[in-house]
Amino acid sequence: MPSTHTVPHLQTTLTGPLLELESHLLAHQAEIEAWFRQQFRQTPAPFYASVDLRNAGYKLAPVDTNLFPAGFNNLAPELMPLAVQAAQVAVMQACPVADGVLIIPENHTRNTFYLENLKALQNILCAAGYETRIGSLRPDLDHPMEIELPSAQTLTLEPLVRRGDRVGVADFFPCAVLLNNDLSSGRPTILENIEQVLLPPLDMGWVNRYKTHHFEHYTRVAHAFAELIEIDPWIITPLSIQCGPVDFKKREGLNCLAGAVNMVLEQTAEAYQRHGVDDTPFAVVKSDRGTYGMAIMSVQDPDQILNLNKKQRNKMSSGKEGLVAHQMMVQEGVYTFETLKGAVAEPVVYMIGPRVVGGFYRVHTGKSATDNLNAPGMHFEPLSFAEACALPDQQAAPDAAPNRFYAYGVVARLALVAAAREICEAKPNCPGHSQ
Amino acid sequence: MPSTHTVPHLQTTLTGPLLELESHLLAHQAEIEAWFRQQFRQTPAPFYASVDLRNAGYKLAPVDTNLFPAGFNNLAPELMPLAVQAAQVAVMQACPVADGVLIIPENHTRNTFYLENLKALQNILCAAGYETRIGSLRPDLDHPMEIELPSAQTLTLEPLVRRGDRVGVADFFPCAVLLNNDLSSGRPTILENIEQVLLPPLDMGWVNRYKTHHFEHYTRVAHAFAELIEIDPWIITPLSIQCGPVDFKKREGLNCLAGAVNMVLEQTAEAYQRHGVDDTPFAVVKSDRGTYGMAIMSVQDPDQILNLNKKQRNKMSSGKEGLVAHQMMVQEGVYTFETLKGAVAEPVVYMIGPRVVGGFYRVHTGKSATDNLNAPGMHFEPLSFAEACALPDQQAAPDAAPNRFYAYGVVARLALVAAAREICEAKPNCPGHSQ
Repeated sequence: MPSTHTVPHLQTTLTGPLLELESHLLAHQAEIEAWFRQQFRQTPAPFYASVDLRNAGYKLAPVDTNLFPAGFNNLAPELMPLAVQAAQVAVMQACPVADGVLIIPENHTRNTFYLENLKALQNILCAAGYETRIGSLRPDLDHPMEIELPSAQTLTLEPLVRRGDRVGVADFFPCAVLLNNDLSSGRPTILENIEQVLLPPLDMGWVNRYKTHHFEHYTRVAHAFAELIEIDPWIITPLSIQCGPVDFKKREGLNCLAGAVNMVLEQTAEAYQRHGVDDTPFAVVKSDRGTYGMAIMSVQDPDQILNLNKKQRNKMSSGKEGLVAHQMMVQEGVYTFETLKGAVAEPVVYMIGPRVVGGFYRVHTGKSATDNLNAPGMHFEPLSFAEACALPDQQAAPDAAPNRFYAYGVVARLALVAAAREICEAKPNCPGHSQ
Repeated sequence: MPSTHTVPHLQTTLTGPLLELESHLLAHQAEIEAWFRQQFRQTPAPFYASVDLRNAGYKLAPVDTNLFPAGFNNLAPELMPLAVQAAQVAVMQACPVADGVLIIPENHTRNTFYLENLKALQNILCAAGYETRIGSLRPDLDHPMEIELPSAQTLTLEPLVRRGDRVGVADFFPCAVLLNNDLSSGRPTILENIEQVLLPPLDMGWVNRYKTHHFEHYTRVAHAFAELIEIDPWIITPLSIQCGPVDFKKREGLNCLAGAVNMVLEQTAEAYQRHGVDDTPFAVVKSDRGTYGMAIMSVQDPDQILNLNKKQRNKMSSGKEGLVAHQMMVQEGVYTFETLKGAVAEPVVYMIGPRVVGGFYRVHTGKSATDNLNAPGMHFEPLSFAEACALPDQQAAPDAAPNRFYAYGVVARLALVAAAREICEAKPNCPGHSQ
């Protein structure tokens, strides 16, 4: 079992009920792993995902599940073998005969953080034994483009082409095509009806996906899991309500939105009282579609919604690549009480197939515990988890680092089960999900 | 990719051709992984195995492949998540619906090193989400026995019972039964024709298995691999010849054995000349069956075989649990040039399913480079590999630690392919193996 390892000195001010959660997870580890196995046998896990968590000490909950994860370059190098092993299994399950993988990335070619992620992903798949090339959707790319990265590696983007029912680059048309593009700008025609295995399926782009729909699934999954290990499901579930259509520019739907905020704040206040939590409830309002923290705000009072100024309303109506916010999600805000040298630290957990392969903290010095950390242009320091989130230490205290990481890995996988169900539902023959 | 990591300060005096091997492995990594994937798709890997390697600097070769590996307690705790992940996949493939695993261990209950191994194996399977209990074959065990281990953990051995066509302990009769007993004393009747999945199959016990047979497979595998990456297969292949029957006590078959030794020494001398190696060839004579280094000796001259004294002959005719040496294997000796503070260090690589999960060095101060390190009662210091053998570092020098470990992992997996073919051959419907 893992020995004590160098682990960031994180501090959690409130630890009561989370310790309780960690203790429950430790006591039920074999059952938990068997339960996840059963879930993913029933509904296969997505090829990969990352899950943003918030750890309030008394509550540990996912706030975002990304099916096109970036940030693989932030994982600890020591944990790479785990990612490689998981990738071997995941590609083989998706495409047993594949010897190659084509990655379709986001279009932005100047974001070196993103490009380092792409290189890290390519390295993982190469080390797993798959020739891996990158086919860009950029319309202005007509020949291979080599990019020198800050890590001194070279990334080659090639123009994506279609031949009959297959997509590829040059003479490379492998069976497995991996999307690392969240399709915020829509379903690319070139990818429609290809005969290759597209991971995840085209329907999982943000154009077709609602966050509240994910959290509906998550809530059901979390309830079933809470029953299994005998905890209050509130400890791991953020209340999430859909509201819309909202047009911030035209001030349409704001009353409805304020009502939803009010409902979330009231229910959270009740839950805080029930659990003896002394914090002020807050709600997070964000677009029900799209990633990137552009249309997002934290509110502690419904009136804030009604009194937005023009600048705030403009911000809330902007989306990535022109995706306009119409449906909104109002979600219970979960405080961030993990800090590193006074800076807020938020965990992100990475999974390949059904397996946790690592994670990191987004550490940011300029923000408070209620702010959203994934804001555009924001500076954050990635801090790799020193351990894999995969293995608790039964001999150590419930809040020892491996056990906290294990708790992260468990809650992240609950979100993964929810995502698996979303993907299944988008297919024609999805069986019903048992509890 | 792995950063520089604390790695034992090992020294290899001769590095020329091994550097060449490592360079070739680095250059062909994706092809190599794809090749292994194809091999194990064709012939599934054993549930687990460990492979003893010898690293002479100019040659890296397996000398023993153990299908009932002990020593899991010697793996680095940091690498445990890798073992857990590999175990999840391996159990699921053997037995998709299993929620439990029964381990059948060796009978010796006083060897705390072995018992710690057993506990480590149990911990790996528990962490993988399988209820794991230990069913002992000991005829004198009629109730559960709790053993306190030096690591402060408790190991519980339960009497193995049979009910109809299933074996189990108490009310625990899971689908997967894992042998950690090399069956040197024969095929236990209680395990014959059980309907559960027995891993590895009963036919893989030493009663049914010849080492030379394994090395015949290995030689074919190594040749195919050498062609793939364009190296001389000698660099990774130890010449192995079967000889027998030999009865040391009655001095029968010794001339034949001396002849085999002579052949190995001559062919090795030729190979040394071809490769510009300045060492004195030696041969290792050991029982063609059985593990444990009891009937084993190193010779540099065939006359040593003819002039054995009574004590030496007695030693050579003893085997584990009374298994008498009849068929012998004469194998090209491969020098051990890796040292740690002047002590000989020999790598052992561990695999679960087709995946390398770690390894350690047997470090022994009192032995020379030609001696066998796995002698009974011998003291050795396990020194965990700091890395997983799973992932080379393309940016580092070919002999940098991750790359040497990767080379270990590749050669060990070649032996694993050979073992997979042995297991397949023991089954009624084994398809032929392509090169």
